[in-house]
Amino acid sequence: MELLSILLMLLVLFALARIGNRLFELFGMPGLIGEIIVGIIIANVVIDGTSLLTILDVTIPEPGSDDAGPTYSILYTFAELGVIFLLFSVGLETKVGTLLSVGRTAMFVAGLGVLVPFVLGFAFIMAQEGEFNHAMFLGAAMVATSVGITARVIKDMHLMEKRESRIIVGAAVIDDVLGMIVLAIVKGIADSGDSGFEILDLVIIIIEACAFVLAIIAFAKYCVPRIHAWRQKQVEEYTEKTGKVPRGINDFILGIIVCLALAAFAEYIGLAAIIGAFLAGMLFADHAWETGMDKKVDTLTTFLISFFFLNVGLQVDLSAFTTVDIAIDVVVILVLALISKFIGCGLGARLGEKMDGDSCKIIGVGMVPRGEVGIIVASIGLHIMVDGESALSPELYSVIVIMAVATTIIAPPILTKFFRKKYADDFADPSE
Amino acid sequence: MELLSILLMLLVLFALARIGNRLFELFGMPGLIGEIIVGIIIANVVIDGTSLLTILDVTIPEPGSDDAGPTYSILYTFAELGVIFLLFSVGLETKVGTLLSVGRTAMFVAGLGVLVPFVLGFAFIMAQEGEFNHAMFLGAAMVATSVGITARVIKDMHLMEKRESRIIVGAAVIDDVLGMIVLAIVKGIADSGDSGFEILDLVIIIIEACAFVLAIIAFAKYCVPRIHAWRQKQVEEYTEKTGKVPRGINDFILGIIVCLALAAFAEYIGLAAIIGAFLAGMLFADHAWETGMDKKVDTLTTFLISFFFLNVGLQVDLSAFTTVDIAIDVVVILVLALISKFIGCGLGARLGEKMDGDSCKIIGVGMVPRGEVGIIVASIGLHIMVDGESALSPELYSVIVIMAVATTIIAPPILTKFFRKKYADDFADPSE
Repeated sequence: MELLSILLMLLVLFALARIGNRLFELFGMPGLIGEIIVGIIIANVVIDGTSLLTILDVTIPEPGSDDAGPTYSILYTFAELGVIFLLFSVGLETKVGTLLSVGRTAMFVAGLGVLVPFVLGFAFIMAQEGEFNHAMFLGAAMVATSVGITARVIKDMHLMEKRESRIIVGAAVIDDVLGMIVLAIVKGIADSGDSGFEILDLVIIIIEACAFVLAIIAFAKYCVPRIHAWRQKQVEEYTEKTGKVPRGINDFILGIIVCLALAAFAEYIGLAAIIGAFLAGMLFADHAWETGMDKKVDTLTTFLISFFFLNVGLQVDLSAFTTVDIAIDVVVILVLALISKFIGCGLGARLGEKMDGDSCKIIGVGMVPRGEVGIIVASIGLHIMVDGESALSPELYSVIVIMAVATTIIAPPILTKFFRKKYADDFADPSE
Repeated sequence: MELLSILLMLLVLFALARIGNRLFELFGMPGLIGEIIVGIIIANVVIDGTSLLTILDVTIPEPGSDDAGPTYSILYTFAELGVIFLLFSVGLETKVGTLLSVGRTAMFVAGLGVLVPFVLGFAFIMAQEGEFNHAMFLGAAMVATSVGITARVIKDMHLMEKRESRIIVGAAVIDDVLGMIVLAIVKGIADSGDSGFEILDLVIIIIEACAFVLAIIAFAKYCVPRIHAWRQKQVEEYTEKTGKVPRGINDFILGIIVCLALAAFAEYIGLAAIIGAFLAGMLFADHAWETGMDKKVDTLTTFLISFFFLNVGLQVDLSAFTTVDIAIDVVVILVLALISKFIGCGLGARLGEKMDGDSCKIIGVGMVPRGEVGIIVASIGLHIMVDGESALSPELYSVIVIMAVATTIIAPPILTKFFRKKYADDFADPSE
């Protein structure tokens, strides 16, 4: 284990990502796009047969493969912890009462945001090549929402308090549960070649996921205030008796432990780890500012999150654009991905609580990024074998990866623009 | 790559380390000892043939081997970054003027703190078994000072401002340069079996190390104030012209990049990475508090440093205590390690600036921990082959590892006690 090569890898990637971030911000665009594009450049630019990744000893593993070298394992861990802490900090700004108050609309947004993309994606592949399994997995990959990107944009603009932001975050949680159910059904059907589709397994997965999310929400609503009141009383009694302030539990460390625990548990039952992290943050939302825990989690995130966006970019293999057919597929599927979420979620916001056009647009765009969740769905499709071939073709896999990353790049500037239009008063800077 | 297993590993190790930390603090002892002991327990307790490390899929590699699995690579990276950021934050609290003001005494402390342990260690092995190479490598391992442990104790007690703390930190930097020179000489002699000892290589290494340390100190003293003044002027002119505050460079991110760069460079030229990190911190010491950079680095450290102390404990293989002879060796070498640094460094403080007994004791104890630096020296000895056998015997390697960890465990409570005695007024708590 060479400490020097690890330090060099972290240094070079972090510095390049931050330079990309700054350059994009200088031109008024969200910095995270700069980080993703730096990742794409690093992964695809080869000089004299050697890429920067080779020099840094980083091997991007094949999708679904466990064959990553130690160096990529480290990069991957930093990336995943980055987005986990980002969603934890979003949770810290989300009080359970506020989340519940947008519950009805969030359900409409998530529901239509799952239905419309799935139907459009499925219909396109059935019309184009008629492969049932391909159509199902493309549909499932179109359903995913990666809230990490939107969350970063909203946090950078300091707009987490707005109702649209709440609805997006709430809908993203519900979307993840629905997306997991869709994936379970699609996997079940593809797997069922000889053994038959196990409806009971599916029901168990659905019950587990819903029970987990509802249990944490209930715990946040009913138990956390009592625990907090009890702790306050203990502290007061101690101070009264001894005249000293007790050295209590360090809230920041407790928060990290709870965050990692719920992230791991969510991952274990088949939800995304970031959903667990978000729910963990919600448990501390009422009192995080008292101990500065929110600021501390933000600091951790600042260091780690660049590796996440960089890693999103590293997944893009531009050499997949070998034929005109694939290029056309990319464009069509990308357009479908954009409009299906935009219309589905925007419509959900309108039906849920009659929001005005500007708010519906914000919510529609905010749900567009597919990010790593879409890529994970696609890589599952690539590794399920049906009658000796992949449930998803390698070409369609590449198309989905590019679609997932492209939605992630396209959405943030539009979202920024829509937010600035709607909340012009919040951006006091006279030059805007 | 299983995200779930990575999260579980981090969660379990972090939670156990923090529990160890809290338990020891409850009993008035430094928390880091609890973290090291948790590491020793995890590495050595086997139930039904399975250890916790096996369950967590962590494989501790043989010393000097590159065969670590991805899981241990992640743990190792967290540990090393933890101690790098810890020394960076110590640097942030060390202004270059203050460091230079203790320079003379720090040189005496470091010089005698290298000489006395080397001579005692060398003489003991020559008297006991007469193996010249063994004696040299034991001597070199006794020379190392791991300032991470002492730094943590001082920071936890908020005593970084005291003159003794400054001297310890300054002496640790010089000690690392001297230690590297001793190691280079010892390695050179052991390697010189057929090719002859390359005195020129040695001179180059020494010049590189000294030039690096002196260049950074000179840069901190002469260039940093000018750069800062220039930046201030730029900001003022911009504000005057546009009426806005410019979005400058994020100091925290700049700090991380400089820290990683100097840590990597120090490692590259053969110094410890933590020395580079400390010097990087010193570059920002004058203005770190203005942007809250010191607090942010502390937050990063809080998350990562527990993995460092845990990892120190994981290196201890208690099964090395197989014979009475080895147990006796451990005790004798441990006693020599303790008294040689205590006397050497204490004497240095007395000769350097006629410090009083209490201050000499603090400095003597503060320099005692060998930590990972001693282990690194020993593992180099284990892997140099002289006439077909290791320059250091495997038994002596185990003894050194246990000595290095034991000094790390023994020193902090004594240091805490000595500091409390000398600065009783600083600890206002009436119960003390």
